[in-house]
Amino acid sequence: MRRAIALALENVRTASGGPFAAVIVKQDRIIAEGTNRVTGTNDPTAHAEIVAIREACRVLADFQLSGCELYTTCEPCPMCLGAIYWARPARIFYAATAADAADAGFDDAFIYDELNIAPAGRRIPMTQLLRDDSLAIFSAWKQQENKTSY
Amino acid sequence: MRRAIALALENVRTASGGPFAAVIVKQDRIIAEGTNRVTGTNDPTAHAEIVAIREACRVLADFQLSGCELYTTCEPCPMCLGAIYWARPARIFYAATAADAADAGFDDAFIYDELNIAPAGRRIPMTQLLRDDSLAIFSAWKQQENKTSY
Repeated sequence: MRRAIALALENVRTASGGPFAAVIVKQDRIIAEGTNRVTGTNDPTAHAEIVAIREACRVLADFQLSGCELYTTCEPCPMCLGAIYWARPARIFYAATAADAADAGFDDAFIYDELNIAPAGRRIPMTQLLRDDSLAIFSAWKQQENKTSY
Repeated sequence: MRRAIALALENVRTASGGPFAAVIVKQDRIIAEGTNRVTGTNDPTAHAEIVAIREACRVLADFQLSGCELYTTCEPCPMCLGAIYWARPARIFYAATAADAADAGFDDAFIYDELNIAPAGRRIPMTQLLRDDSLAIFSAWKQQENKTSY
């Protein structure tokens, strides 16, 4: 965690991105690091945890982080928490809370609230269409024998 | 949406990834497309919406998708919904529901449930440490004048 905090401080000081960093450890060794790169790379998904998860998966040549620990300088936002569940590391350590982040102008709480509102009522409106047509995709998936589940 | 459904069907038929695709439109023109590439690229964050958002931001050279519409073949998972809120498109259209995805073996509902549980009680345990040390990062951010907010 001390390494993650140092990386985040450096990210702010060099104006490289937001005040966040993450480190992924496997068997007591750092295998990947990530800092927030949203503005530097024009990638709204480049939060520290996502950058670190993508790098760790590249290093391990696997889409799962079994047996890994993720250290992040701040409680993950819903996007990053979702990514963590898909990557399935063994354990997460975080330093600052979501409330600390909100104090610094990063209002993840708004997104957490939106997730609990029905799609049509959200601030970014969500409209359903062509559901019946789309079900053919899942039928094809169920019938596909040559597939890798994840 | 018909284009997204065709892309998802093709993704399944070619065993390139999961049964999902997304298309991003600006001013009635498709500016980016994405298909699920999790297993093909060893990237658990490579859901169709994330792939399409990253590509659209690259095309627009912007970390925001103002005025864009995102068409996705399935209701977004928490990771993708989070990414959508950070990218801030104007509107979302989706075809299949989260329940349809669950029927096909993609249980996003589990992640939605976990988000509403306190960090320490989650299936992937989350432990807080070094909070006080981490607050120096937000102090540095607040004092940094040469920064780009997002």
